[in-house]
Amino acid sequence: MRSLDAEMAAHVQRAAEAVGVRVLLSVDVEEICAHADGRPRSVKTSVGELPADHVVLSTGVRPATALAQAAGLALGPTGAVATDAQQRCPSADGVFAAGDCAESFHRVLRAPVNIQLGTHANKQGRVAGTNATGGRVEFPGVVGTAVSKICRYEVARTGVTEREAHAAGLRVASSTITARTRAGYYPGAGPIWVRLVVDPIDGRLLGGQIVGVEGAAKRIDVLASCVWNGTTVGELEFYDLAYAPPFSGVYDPLLIAARQATNLLDGGTRR
Amino acid sequence: MRSLDAEMAAHVQRAAEAVGVRVLLSVDVEEICAHADGRPRSVKTSVGELPADHVVLSTGVRPATALAQAAGLALGPTGAVATDAQQRCPSADGVFAAGDCAESFHRVLRAPVNIQLGTHANKQGRVAGTNATGGRVEFPGVVGTAVSKICRYEVARTGVTEREAHAAGLRVASSTITARTRAGYYPGAGPIWVRLVVDPIDGRLLGGQIVGVEGAAKRIDVLASCVWNGTTVGELEFYDLAYAPPFSGVYDPLLIAARQATNLLDGGTRR
Repeated sequence: MRSLDAEMAAHVQRAAEAVGVRVLLSVDVEEICAHADGRPRSVKTSVGELPADHVVLSTGVRPATALAQAAGLALGPTGAVATDAQQRCPSADGVFAAGDCAESFHRVLRAPVNIQLGTHANKQGRVAGTNATGGRVEFPGVVGTAVSKICRYEVARTGVTEREAHAAGLRVASSTITARTRAGYYPGAGPIWVRLVVDPIDGRLLGGQIVGVEGAAKRIDVLASCVWNGTTVGELEFYDLAYAPPFSGVYDPLLIAARQATNLLDGGTRR
Repeated sequence: MRSLDAEMAAHVQRAAEAVGVRVLLSVDVEEICAHADGRPRSVKTSVGELPADHVVLSTGVRPATALAQAAGLALGPTGAVATDAQQRCPSADGVFAAGDCAESFHRVLRAPVNIQLGTHANKQGRVAGTNATGGRVEFPGVVGTAVSKICRYEVARTGVTEREAHAAGLRVASSTITARTRAGYYPGAGPIWVRLVVDPIDGRLLGGQIVGVEGAAKRIDVLASCVWNGTTVGELEFYDLAYAPPFSGVYDPLLIAARQATNLLDGGTRR
């Protein structure tokens, strides 16, 4: 679960273990062994041989660029097809690229990325089609928002993780809070964790991660809009977010997280 | 349901009627009649007498300002206690006001309002307490976000309705879309309606209303952040919102709504 920082990924691991999944990390897969008829039988690993009825490989994705390269299109630094904001290939006049094979501009990293998501592909395809047919519209980039449902949790992220920020040479501070998804007295509440990744000098939100039994998926979109706009945690702390007991406590978990991050940056001196 | 424009309120009315509630609008209440022991018996109205076991009056709220007025504090144009952004009463040095009795600055109307919500009261109380004890922090205002659960629907709003915009003399255009809360093939999807209220000249989002079986409550917070920041529907249309089949179609209902509003403003000419 490298899309989250380790502290947040641990919640997902525990949720998987709670339904009986045995999670082995940092284990090398050495061989996938099959029955005579081709069905999987076991997986040999650095911690021994494990019986297996099914084997699912989930080892990441790479853009399929063979066609583009054969056509002489330039690839960008990520290995995907380079485009400008109109989805034009700078290397070939009149050629457009969009979707999983193409780069996107990341608004936090200020650099091209290759993220394979249907949301980006759809928007880019529309931009490419519009410009190819005489319109003029620009794709303004991405902030790396993604969400999954894993066991009992909604798992969501946007912007950059602390690890990604470090890798990109960004100055970074992080702060995580635990809250409840509904007012304390309202039935059906469950845990929700919110982690904010912040520029420690100006307080801009660089990323966010949310794991929770409900409400993580759509809450991440508020953080995505903050990351998109360079909103500071000091601003977010006062946002006029919706409150009713079935949906949050009077301070939404996002506001609690923003306040803790603000206090952290202030060294607790402001208030 | 005057917190919504009539078109959106109609969904709430139908949901109430679907569970057996008889909704009578524009009917005058003439008398509440009681049994000899004081228990309610009926309500006399302009369309006849209706039997009643319980009578609930929900006629709005007014700030309780008797104490403030007795103390010589000035009220603002809304009839609530006037304060500055630090929650100080300009009319009395060293006195602060916060919560349901006090005015808030509305960021769209650019005018004081008196909205009785726990979220505002909590934040204002913290601001008042901070400033009263030697700190310095400002309450940046409100955008009128609110959410309820009514029968099968989550009902949410932020900013101004079209009616409120008209009443305030704002130029305004509105656009409503119908979408589904999950990917088409994913079980458990239901309807969601999103109405955007927009400045027709510059495309700024002035308000939003959402009614849906799920996901309305937290989606309104994205619109609240847009209204807060003066984001245009053209910008919102490209926001990098989360997508996975349990949570939305590949185009989130908010993005569909923003696109329709953008097309409306463009007169369909841009693309």
